[in-house]
Amino acid sequence: MSDTPTGVVDLLGVLAYAELTAFLRLAEDAASLAPSLTDRAALSDLAAVEHRHFRLLRDRLAEVGVDPEEAMAPFVDALDAWHAQTRPADWLEALVKAYVGTGISMDFYREAARRVDPGTAALVEEALADEGRSEFAVERVRAALKTDPKVSGRLALWARRLVGEALSQAHRVAAVRPALAALLVEAGDGEDLPEIGRMFARLTEAHGKRMAALGLTPGP
Amino acid sequence: MSDTPTGVVDLLGVLAYAELTAFLRLAEDAASLAPSLTDRAALSDLAAVEHRHFRLLRDRLAEVGVDPEEAMAPFVDALDAWHAQTRPADWLEALVKAYVGTGISMDFYREAARRVDPGTAALVEEALADEGRSEFAVERVRAALKTDPKVSGRLALWARRLVGEALSQAHRVAAVRPALAALLVEAGDGEDLPEIGRMFARLTEAHGKRMAALGLTPGP
Repeated sequence: MSDTPTGVVDLLGVLAYAELTAFLRLAEDAASLAPSLTDRAALSDLAAVEHRHFRLLRDRLAEVGVDPEEAMAPFVDALDAWHAQTRPADWLEALVKAYVGTGISMDFYREAARRVDPGTAALVEEALADEGRSEFAVERVRAALKTDPKVSGRLALWARRLVGEALSQAHRVAAVRPALAALLVEAGDGEDLPEIGRMFARLTEAHGKRMAALGLTPGP
Repeated sequence: MSDTPTGVVDLLGVLAYAELTAFLRLAEDAASLAPSLTDRAALSDLAAVEHRHFRLLRDRLAEVGVDPEEAMAPFVDALDAWHAQTRPADWLEALVKAYVGTGISMDFYREAARRVDPGTAALVEEALADEGRSEFAVERVRAALKTDPKVSGRLALWARRLVGEALSQAHRVAAVRPALAALLVEAGDGEDLPEIGRMFARLTEAHGKRMAALGLTPGP
């Protein structure tokens, strides 16, 4: 039996499954949506990065005496549901999902990592490293918008849906994993409301920056 | 323009695309067929190995001044057709494909690498390294056959189909890429027949060993 706090095991477990599924979904998108072999290879590279991150987390779970499968299991339904409800219809949607959808999910994990021990926090930070994902997506989406500006409305709606589904699944996870939820918000009393507000302000700001980077927000 | 011989560029190109698609197909099988999270993660690990091998080959192509996409392009149809015609229906078929189907394909590439410069040969050998793929498949298939011996007939037929489709696609590739075919058999005169015979004897023997390792051949 591990003496690692439940919240930490939950964080490692949810993030491990998030990385494993991100790996598999990016590979699927690379196989089925990439418009060229070069793009297919490039998205495959990004998928492989997620796999490396998955291994870091799985190894840490094993190291602290937790069965990785058991740690991941509670989060399978919510994360699978997120992917099922945000299946990209084309290459541009896949890129926006890889950047905006993954981005806000990663921000949630980063918020949770603010309240764990420094060793876990460093590992989570490593597992959340971007490694070219954003740059690739931003570059390709901006180029596409330049060629065909009218696609921006559809992509902006798509991004909104990605975020809505992410929030809805985060809520679902928080409801059944109180120890993990407590890493995001100290549970129990009204004192937390300002901190919750600040957290959502940070998430919203980071999301807005990503949308702007893609060229999906109205100019000043 | 690269001064690398066409046969070598073809070998690097076909192998690069073979590794890229092996990566994507293993990821797909991991996502859709794995019976547990542990198996899904294990097959994902094997997929990631193929991706590493793909990078080796792509980097080498770039290094010798060849566009990887151009080098891979002539082989896309044949390899995609192979995968389309050998889509596993379940987890055991996926494992047999990962071992027997990939095994015989790799043997073909290994044969071709016998007639290239030592630097290319060493790189191809590195890209063909097994890294646990066989062990994983053999262990799982043998365990399944122990539980349910009557599945062996179906899997033996499946293996035969994998090999038949591989031969048929190899023939198709050889017909359009003579420089690559010449690496397998010195083209042009009847002198080669004994060597072709020996090559098929080697391929057949290696295939037989894999079938026996899986427990899919009748005992003595």
